[in-house]
Amino acid sequence: MQARAGGRTDRQLRPLRIAPVPNKFAAGSVLIELGDTRVNCTASVDEGVPFFLRNSSPAQGWLTAEYAMLPASTPNRARRERNFLSGRTQEIQRLIGRSLRAVTDLSKCPDLTITIDCDVLLADGGTRTASITGAYVALRLAVTQLLRRGRLKQDPLHDAVAAVSVGVRGERLLCDLDYREDSGIDLDMNVVMTPSGGIVEIQGTAERAAFRKEQLNAIVDLAADGLQPVFVAQREAVERALA
Amino acid sequence: MQARAGGRTDRQLRPLRIAPVPNKFAAGSVLIELGDTRVNCTASVDEGVPFFLRNSSPAQGWLTAEYAMLPASTPNRARRERNFLSGRTQEIQRLIGRSLRAVTDLSKCPDLTITIDCDVLLADGGTRTASITGAYVALRLAVTQLLRRGRLKQDPLHDAVAAVSVGVRGERLLCDLDYREDSGIDLDMNVVMTPSGGIVEIQGTAERAAFRKEQLNAIVDLAADGLQPVFVAQREAVERALA
Amino acid sequence: MQARAGGRTDRQLRPLRIAPVPNKFAAGSVLIELGDTRVNCTASVDEGVPFFLRNSSPAQGWLTAEYAMLPASTPNRARRERNFLSGRTQEIQRLIGRSLRAVTDLSKCPDLTITIDCDVLLADGGTRTASITGAYVALRLAVTQLLRRGRLKQDPLHDAVAAVSVGVRGERLLCDLDYREDSGIDLDMNVVMTPSGGIVEIQGTAERAAFRKEQLNAIVDLAADGLQPVFVAQREAVERALA
Amino acid sequence: MQARAGGRTDRQLRPLRIAPVPNKFAAGSVLIELGDTRVNCTASVDEGVPFFLRNSSPAQGWLTAEYAMLPASTPNRARRERNFLSGRTQEIQRLIGRSLRAVTDLSKCPDLTITIDCDVLLADGGTRTASITGAYVALRLAVTQLLRRGRLKQDPLHDAVAAVSVGVRGERLLCDLDYREDSGIDLDMNVVMTPSGGIVEIQGTAERAAFRKEQLNAIVDLAADGLQPVFVAQREAVERALA
Amino acid sequence: MQARAGGRTDRQLRPLRIAPVPNKFAAGSVLIELGDTRVNCTASVDEGVPFFLRNSSPAQGWLTAEYAMLPASTPNRARRERNFLSGRTQEIQRLIGRSLRAVTDLSKCPDLTITIDCDVLLADGGTRTASITGAYVALRLAVTQLLRRGRLKQDPLHDAVAAVSVGVRGERLLCDLDYREDSGIDLDMNVVMTPSGGIVEIQGTAERAAFRKEQLNAIVDLAADGLQPVFVAQREAVERALA
Amino acid sequence: MQARAGGRTDRQLRPLRIAPVPNKFAAGSVLIELGDTRVNCTASVDEGVPFFLRNSSPAQGWLTAEYAMLPASTPNRARRERNFLSGRTQEIQRLIGRSLRAVTDLSKCPDLTITIDCDVLLADGGTRTASITGAYVALRLAVTQLLRRGRLKQDPLHDAVAAVSVGVRGERLLCDLDYREDSGIDLDMNVVMTPSGGIVEIQGTAERAAFRKEQLNAIVDLAADGLQPVFVAQREAVERALA
Repeated sequence: MQARAGGRTDRQLRPLRIAPVPNKFAAGSVLIELGDTRVNCTASVDEGVPFFLRNSSPAQGWLTAEYAMLPASTPNRARRERNFLSGRTQEIQRLIGRSLRAVTDLSKCPDLTITIDCDVLLADGGTRTASITGAYVALRLAVTQLLRRGRLKQDPLHDAVAAVSVGVRGERLLCDLDYREDSGIDLDMNVVMTPSGGIVEIQGTAERAAFRKEQLNAIVDLAADGLQPVFVAQREAVERALA
Repeated sequence: MQARAGGRTDRQLRPLRIAPVPNKFAAGSVLIELGDTRVNCTASVDEGVPFFLRNSSPAQGWLTAEYAMLPASTPNRARRERNFLSGRTQEIQRLIGRSLRAVTDLSKCPDLTITIDCDVLLADGGTRTASITGAYVALRLAVTQLLRRGRLKQDPLHDAVAAVSVGVRGERLLCDLDYREDSGIDLDMNVVMTPSGGIVEIQGTAERAAFRKEQLNAIVDLAADGLQPVFVAQREAVERALA
Repeated sequence: MQARAGGRTDRQLRPLRIAPVPNKFAAGSVLIELGDTRVNCTASVDEGVPFFLRNSSPAQGWLTAEYAMLPASTPNRARRERNFLSGRTQEIQRLIGRSLRAVTDLSKCPDLTITIDCDVLLADGGTRTASITGAYVALRLAVTQLLRRGRLKQDPLHDAVAAVSVGVRGERLLCDLDYREDSGIDLDMNVVMTPSGGIVEIQGTAERAAFRKEQLNAIVDLAADGLQPVFVAQREAVERALA
Repeated sequence: MQARAGGRTDRQLRPLRIAPVPNKFAAGSVLIELGDTRVNCTASVDEGVPFFLRNSSPAQGWLTAEYAMLPASTPNRARRERNFLSGRTQEIQRLIGRSLRAVTDLSKCPDLTITIDCDVLLADGGTRTASITGAYVALRLAVTQLLRRGRLKQDPLHDAVAAVSVGVRGERLLCDLDYREDSGIDLDMNVVMTPSGGIVEIQGTAERAAFRKEQLNAIVDLAADGLQPVFVAQREAVERALA
Repeated sequence: MQARAGGRTDRQLRPLRIAPVPNKFAAGSVLIELGDTRVNCTASVDEGVPFFLRNSSPAQGWLTAEYAMLPASTPNRARRERNFLSGRTQEIQRLIGRSLRAVTDLSKCPDLTITIDCDVLLADGGTRTASITGAYVALRLAVTQLLRRGRLKQDPLHDAVAAVSVGVRGERLLCDLDYREDSGIDLDMNVVMTPSGGIVEIQGTAERAAFRKEQLNAIVDLAADGLQPVFVAQREAVERALA
Repeated sequence: MQARAGGRTDRQLRPLRIAPVPNKFAAGSVLIELGDTRVNCTASVDEGVPFFLRNSSPAQGWLTAEYAMLPASTPNRARRERNFLSGRTQEIQRLIGRSLRAVTDLSKCPDLTITIDCDVLLADGGTRTASITGAYVALRLAVTQLLRRGRLKQDPLHDAVAAVSVGVRGERLLCDLDYREDSGIDLDMNVVMTPSGGIVEIQGTAERAAFRKEQLNAIVDLAADGLQPVFVAQREAVERALA
């Protein structure tokens, strides 16, 4: 049985670090590192809402996300998406937005638009899960700042959220795949969860053969376990930034 | 407890009809009707493969999908996506393509590109699941024609595939949501399966609150049950078309 | 002298069928079949007018058309026009719009926008003439519905309109060219007319050599003759749909 | 009965001037002035043909046209078409290209692409007809230069071509409408002809009511008459430029 | 030492001609010819300002420029920039706009937008400098007309502006490079100045080796000298047009 | 006289820091901080050259640059340039590319394309000058790696290059403007130089009134002085990265 890079077990994530980044313009700004994967996550706050929410009653806020890869983040320089967005990019940024909105009560941030930007500095697998995990911290920091400044009256965030990938290769279940592991996998599943084990989003695609319900259950259990230290890291990053 | 339109039970799909459509240019062409939802699915075959598969060894074929909604398919006329593709459209057509490729051995259709087009004539909920179900039949017809003409030596399709949505509203699990049901739902899950209960793709998003593993299992079971008559309808449509 | 496919005479159209299509969202919806050519025509009604008609006095309505070919409608799969519109597409949809506006009094449908969508399911020649013929029926159905609902006070349609192509090959004049006939032609003319023989639009292009006024006259006479059964089919389709 | 601007009769064109413009890069280059309307027409010659003509047998050349309006050519500054082409622009440039190809034998200019550019400096009605008339002169000059340099062996142009508009207002037929006349017209027809009265293209659209075959004939006769001095002006311009 | 085309000295510009062009729609319209380079410059005036100046206090006007090359203006036909603007085009039109705004007090033309269009008919080097020089004359004519009509109360133009290129080749300084000279140059500098020798914009790029401050000074002196007859030509063109 | 932020003199730059950033995919990768301005600069190397350099003799390499601002880098979130590039972006990335090519002998890196990406993490003025300064270091690191790996035989870099802005406000000359200073300035000049005082590019625009040659000279002197510590910082960053 092949060992994993860095000597980690099948159930272990790569080393995780979530660090606040000084940014005098963004309400929340963090750098998340998951192994070699590195994503810059910021939360920007603008007054007003998009046209489709204007005149909604009661007043609503809006929360959306954008995702991009810097050109030098991949083995061969990636072209910037300057003329159109690939399906992959759109799918990922929609996923980030939905995951965050699932823990946010938009009626508690009326007339505000919060935009989360996830810019991948280095892509070694797991950029979408790291983005969600880091995005939550940036959002949490921005919301806390808005509460402290009195711009928000109530906390719109009713839970935390984080994500991890789980892969199946033959009989093995592998937590948090890196880029090299990702290529030889039978099934790659992304699980977005809350600290209490609630599932916010689950996406699994069989690459080679269909998978069975028993595998699905084992995957969800592994994701829930693997995310425990991630939720701790999120809380510590928030505390450090607000200290 | 509110009854469902058409008097169906929570575990029942809407009336399903898959009919071959005469098309002298497309290798496979069907109209799928699921309740009021109506999707035209065709399979076109072109010699050659995209540049990223040229010179691959052994030679590969390619299978991809496109999805679009006709303007009059929605309550308010939908704008044609003539300048860019929305994230929703890209996400759906990527899902259709992945689902079909999961049951296709591309090394058995070397130097061929098969394109599945799903054009929604009327959208009353479930357009992506109906598209997958109808697309498989169009693909099956096209492949059979290629085998009969001797252009393919081996059958690249090793299984069938179909999809259904399952929604959670409070304590109820509802199979195959229509448009009206879809709007008030807590959780909407799309499940793509094979006839033997294998899961090809699963996508679930909590709209309001996270969901639990037990619900996930009940959903998968319901999807598997609900898809049984769908696989029968697929087989009958293929037989009718080839008769 | 070469016989025409289906044994029709030079002055005969291909078999024509105009069938209402159930569509709970579109005010008018028909499928027109002209030989193997098949076009889905719908009329959608939206409140309001484009900005260039706002504040016009007296208040005006607007009527426009869009045209597209489904990918599997042609011998080799046609690419969807998702990034830009070809000149051909724009020319055809402008022609359809002008032809319909010629029989419509826009001051009698104030503050309404009617959009006709013509989607070609199969293209075997004559898609633009079939589109005009089918579009008129969809428009007629939508307008009648608006009158019945009381949303319109007066009927804005003061005449019917339909179209047919006439080709010249050597000494022969051929009515309603199919795709194969179209390729070897010297002159291809599209004539849009009213039941009483009025000409709404005429477009003729010499492919090989200029043509003479005498030919022009013979073409117009043939078009007027050929369109008589078409106007009957339009009336019958309207009656059937409203029955 | 209202007199026409400049005192011309109903059957007269506006003053016409076709002047060669020095251009050391373009093979043919003329400025055409028709009343206040002013169009710069150039013919550029490039070696090679577009991909769809490569490997055609016998070898073919290609001839195409582009049309644009300078921003200051209209009463209110027109936006440059920098992101997409309007349907009107595409329709006009397709018309110019077809009209020229009708008098050109492309097999006599193998492996050459000739591009005609028509740039409107001032638009006072009739820009498309002036463009065709001027474009032919630019093309004639370019082809003669290619023949003289020995790059062409045979003259691919077998005829001349020019165009004029004819309008119907009530009982009057008006030749060569200016911008002000164009707005109040019942029927506007563009006729593209050869010197011997052959019709190359005819396009007529009823703006208000359908028109009848008798009117069509009168229009064609008027166009043929009106174009006689235009063909003379074309010949003189060519002679002057080549002198 | 190689002589320059046309026998001019290193310090001389090419023959310059600025001629008013009749245009009943544009407030100012001139053709500038600098050697073989030929640019059509127009000034269009529209009521209103772009959204970012609305509600500015005190009220402001706006002045902007667009630049384009006609396809036949270059040795090989240039493609029209119909889908996107090249960096070169954007850079040039921004330069023209800035140069003109430097001599314009926008608070003296409140609620007006003046757009300068520079369309290159023939490009033989120096199109950007000729554009600035011609654009100023078009602007001056438009502003004078607005003053005479009473639409402006005060003259917003407080100075004239013109531009010239200076090149360095080895030890030589060459004023106003033509296309052929431009290609073999070590340093190409564009200098935009006022009649009294004020510098409005200076742009210099070392093509091969860095240049020194002493060269910079000699270049500025040469530009100031070379522009003297240009300012005279501008004044004469304005007088001629307003006579 | 108003003091500058951070207590620096008129002739001093803001604190500068150039730090290598670990990136296993990019040949050179640095973060440059100039006061609060922060830019990520990477150099990516690809085999091959763009089509316009293929078959050039002797073989050439290519060096180009791209520039972008992350959304959260500005006071109000900046929109990503996903559909088109603004003129400002194109102008800056062309400037970066030209500045680097001025010190690079492209014939010494045959068949290689080096792309420099400058992504602004925080924009507090001077992003284009910081980009050039940081880009040179990334380029130097990439080239050294290529030399060490033997992929390059000769060093194509014959000099260093860095940039600084100088502003004029009334009588004062201010080195390295921050964002707040930039807005109230009379003249803003960007100077790109080599360590020995050679000028590679100079760009100055009078915002309010033209400037004089004497000011130009004082600006160039100040830039040369101000850049001395910058060249030292570049050298130290290279040494540190290669240690």
